[in-house]
Amino acid sequence: MCRPQRPHGEHAGIQHEKIIHRIKKLMSLHDLRTHAGRSYKRRYVMAAENAEKYAYKLVKKIRMRILDVPGAFGKVALELGKHGAMLGDITKVHVTTQYVTRDIVMFFDNEEQFEDTIQAIGEFKGYKILSVEDEVLSIHKGGKVAMIPTVKMETLGDLRMIYTPGVAQACKYIDEHPQSASDLTSIGNSVCIATNGSAVLGLGNIGVLAGMPVMEGKSVILHKMVGVSCIPLLIDSDHADIIVGTLHAVAKTFSIIMIEDIAAPLCFEVEQKLQQRVPIPVFHDDQHGTATVILATLIKTMQDLGKRKETVSIVISGAGAAGTATCKMLREYGFQNMVVCDSQGAIAGTRTKHMNAYKEEIARITNAGNETGPLKNVIKNKDIFIGVSSAYVVTQDMVRSMNKDPIVLALANPIPEIWPHEASQAGAAFALDGRTVNNCLAFPGLIRGTLDARATRITYPMKFAAAEAIADLAGKREGVPNFMNPAIHRRIAEAVKAAALPS
Amino acid sequence: MCRPQRPHGEHAGIQHEKIIHRIKKLMSLHDLRTHAGRSYKRRYVMAAENAEKYAYKLVKKIRMRILDVPGAFGKVALELGKHGAMLGDITKVHVTTQYVTRDIVMFFDNEEQFEDTIQAIGEFKGYKILSVEDEVLSIHKGGKVAMIPTVKMETLGDLRMIYTPGVAQACKYIDEHPQSASDLTSIGNSVCIATNGSAVLGLGNIGVLAGMPVMEGKSVILHKMVGVSCIPLLIDSDHADIIVGTLHAVAKTFSIIMIEDIAAPLCFEVEQKLQQRVPIPVFHDDQHGTATVILATLIKTMQDLGKRKETVSIVISGAGAAGTATCKMLREYGFQNMVVCDSQGAIAGTRTKHMNAYKEEIARITNAGNETGPLKNVIKNKDIFIGVSSAYVVTQDMVRSMNKDPIVLALANPIPEIWPHEASQAGAAFALDGRTVNNCLAFPGLIRGTLDARATRITYPMKFAAAEAIADLAGKREGVPNFMNPAIHRRIAEAVKAAALPS
Repeated sequence: MCRPQRPHGEHAGIQHEKIIHRIKKLMSLHDLRTHAGRSYKRRYVMAAENAEKYAYKLVKKIRMRILDVPGAFGKVALELGKHGAMLGDITKVHVTTQYVTRDIVMFFDNEEQFEDTIQAIGEFKGYKILSVEDEVLSIHKGGKVAMIPTVKMETLGDLRMIYTPGVAQACKYIDEHPQSASDLTSIGNSVCIATNGSAVLGLGNIGVLAGMPVMEGKSVILHKMVGVSCIPLLIDSDHADIIVGTLHAVAKTFSIIMIEDIAAPLCFEVEQKLQQRVPIPVFHDDQHGTATVILATLIKTMQDLGKRKETVSIVISGAGAAGTATCKMLREYGFQNMVVCDSQGAIAGTRTKHMNAYKEEIARITNAGNETGPLKNVIKNKDIFIGVSSAYVVTQDMVRSMNKDPIVLALANPIPEIWPHEASQAGAAFALDGRTVNNCLAFPGLIRGTLDARATRITYPMKFAAAEAIADLAGKREGVPNFMNPAIHRRIAEAVKAAALPS
Repeated sequence: MCRPQRPHGEHAGIQHEKIIHRIKKLMSLHDLRTHAGRSYKRRYVMAAENAEKYAYKLVKKIRMRILDVPGAFGKVALELGKHGAMLGDITKVHVTTQYVTRDIVMFFDNEEQFEDTIQAIGEFKGYKILSVEDEVLSIHKGGKVAMIPTVKMETLGDLRMIYTPGVAQACKYIDEHPQSASDLTSIGNSVCIATNGSAVLGLGNIGVLAGMPVMEGKSVILHKMVGVSCIPLLIDSDHADIIVGTLHAVAKTFSIIMIEDIAAPLCFEVEQKLQQRVPIPVFHDDQHGTATVILATLIKTMQDLGKRKETVSIVISGAGAAGTATCKMLREYGFQNMVVCDSQGAIAGTRTKHMNAYKEEIARITNAGNETGPLKNVIKNKDIFIGVSSAYVVTQDMVRSMNKDPIVLALANPIPEIWPHEASQAGAAFALDGRTVNNCLAFPGLIRGTLDARATRITYPMKFAAAEAIADLAGKREGVPNFMNPAIHRRIAEAVKAAALPS
């Protein structure tokens, strides 16, 4: 729910350019880069750093043969600029007496801009476009993961030990000591990442095949950050019983089952039924990873602002997988005042329309004041807004109607409920979106710690330990730590492991 | 069925020592090593080379602290010899003024011999055994495979391309072009190796966990030899419908499903039902890999001996997965005269007891002469014996009762129907067991070729192409080529691919 992605079409590109433009007007490039100031006045800095200039752009690598004369390349660069496209790396790949061939990386806002630009350049005399490669698709060629050997097999002797006849010794040992399977096979370090492709990113039900790149991406992250072997598994069904039955049947292959990108409320049913049947942890990252990183961000930002969980008031927008799990986790952690809104407004015990078992549970544990009506009303005088719903449902006026120095986590994906810089402009003390408050921060440590502890469940204390570790690792006024640092994931894992083991 | 393994208990060790001893008496070490002679008289050479002295032994690595005085190590070596154990590599790991610590690899026939030896050495004064490691189990620690990234993730830019937001571009592309999933994900190179652990090696129904080391071993082989990514999947059920349903549900994750170590007749049902439901090839190596390599060996050895498939007479001992598949494949390839025996004797149309649907099918396509009675009778005047049954069911007298220059493939596992050197002594022109006639020779090329052709089925023409390629690659009078040479698997793959593609 809270993962960002490239927005569709022109609108998103323009929106993004606008942010960059506005931020640039507000402060010098130097300020943007040094990020020295920590005062409330500098709150835009965060939004600017997070904007990641080219993150939402199309990346194309153009191989082009150009006449080797002065100014020839300049003409290409100029034309790019005319169309509003940006230049990336330029690599010489071949030189002849007359021509030079270069690979030129270009960033475009959308396919239209790309096509117009390429067509214009293609019409230049003496220039020839040899190939156009989409960088993202190129990286995905052949997939992003592979199951490979971790042992050598160079001699017949090696073969005899890893396969027949030697392997029989390992088989027999496991037969006699089933617990040793965790050590003597890959099972102890293996996590299943299962999806039915029903809620892939913000793209919806695009099916299992199209969900595979996300599963593989998660697999890459888990291996790079915490050395876990993740096996993506595509389950081609929308029936809870088939998904649960399938995962139950293969569960012995793994030490943890992550379910991923399964739409609510199917994901709740799958998680609950499966967890009852298998002796290993079932973890739905879209729910619990998201809830954990939200809790972490709240702990940290409330600390910076001197707010207390017992007294803050929270509104959550969205009652899907992420919203439901977040609401439950925050409640369990000790937050007292929460109201959850779905597209129909506040979820309350008195509400009779558009309810289901999951929403009734939300009503029982939140909204003690029985607030009703749309988000616009409910958000008034709240300290914290948590958005796991959809684009643009929050306005600057709504932020202004919140209590002083509110915390705004707008995590809808691809476009947040309100852009962080706009929330900041309207008075938010912290405004973050899904690019930083991302479950990526939580799941590697949670998974590693759970594996290391050989835990059979991922409990609330383990998730709380993860959230507190994440909060601890974030710099002052940064909200969250740097995801790309493997050390933070190891630290989170240690905290999770400690919380899992009996003290 | 035809994979060898270390025999249990003392008997096997003694049996093995006997072979070595007898062979040594027959020829000089020089002859054994050079393998120069090709005449019929030298047929023992093959058996000797195949004996692989230590293949069936326990391998232990002993870390020992020994007084650093002349002759101290000699005492250990002598004690080993006294107990009949063998010495492997010796590595110095630590030296102090008084002591030296060494890792000493030792080979034992069985656990008893190992314990007696270690106890005796442990009682030496000034010697201390610091640790004992089982080499095979050590190699298996942590498992033999892992799913790892094939892309780099060093910068936030990399992360944005392989995960959100960039990955959405790959997801959307696949959504619009489902065929591209083979290219843009790992699916195109992924094979599922599924087992329910009901017939692991010759160990029987030891369950899925204990089956995992074999699945991983196969995965190592497939990656090392032909670069395939193999995902072991343990399916904890003995019901065909659950196994088929589970594999059907996850089939989109893979390009081929190999079923493995599933007992007959369950394996037949699973294979047939699953293949009807999934649009990718289902391959049961225990059946078709074995049959393919048997066919290859027959093609090659018959060529060497000038025998023709239309006129040779064959007896197959064993009507399990391997026997049934072999019988069908040989029939399809053009062999005319075959009789299959199970433990009840010849399978014939006239037989009414101990029959089932699969055996009735065998009866329909074999045994035109309606032979009856035990193997002992049926084997008389046959040209070829194929054993995929059990230890010692063939005697030297039975081999002598066969036609001149018979071919004996005794592939039972762990102990063959008759040891190759004994069959050779009794007149077999070729006598091979499962250590050389092994499905290892067939499946890597079959899988690679099938993937490269993007075939949706593994057909008889593809299996025949594999068998013919294997036969082509074997040296004269060697029966089979060298498994450890990756080039042979690539050649086999090319032949399979060519047979799969429309000409």
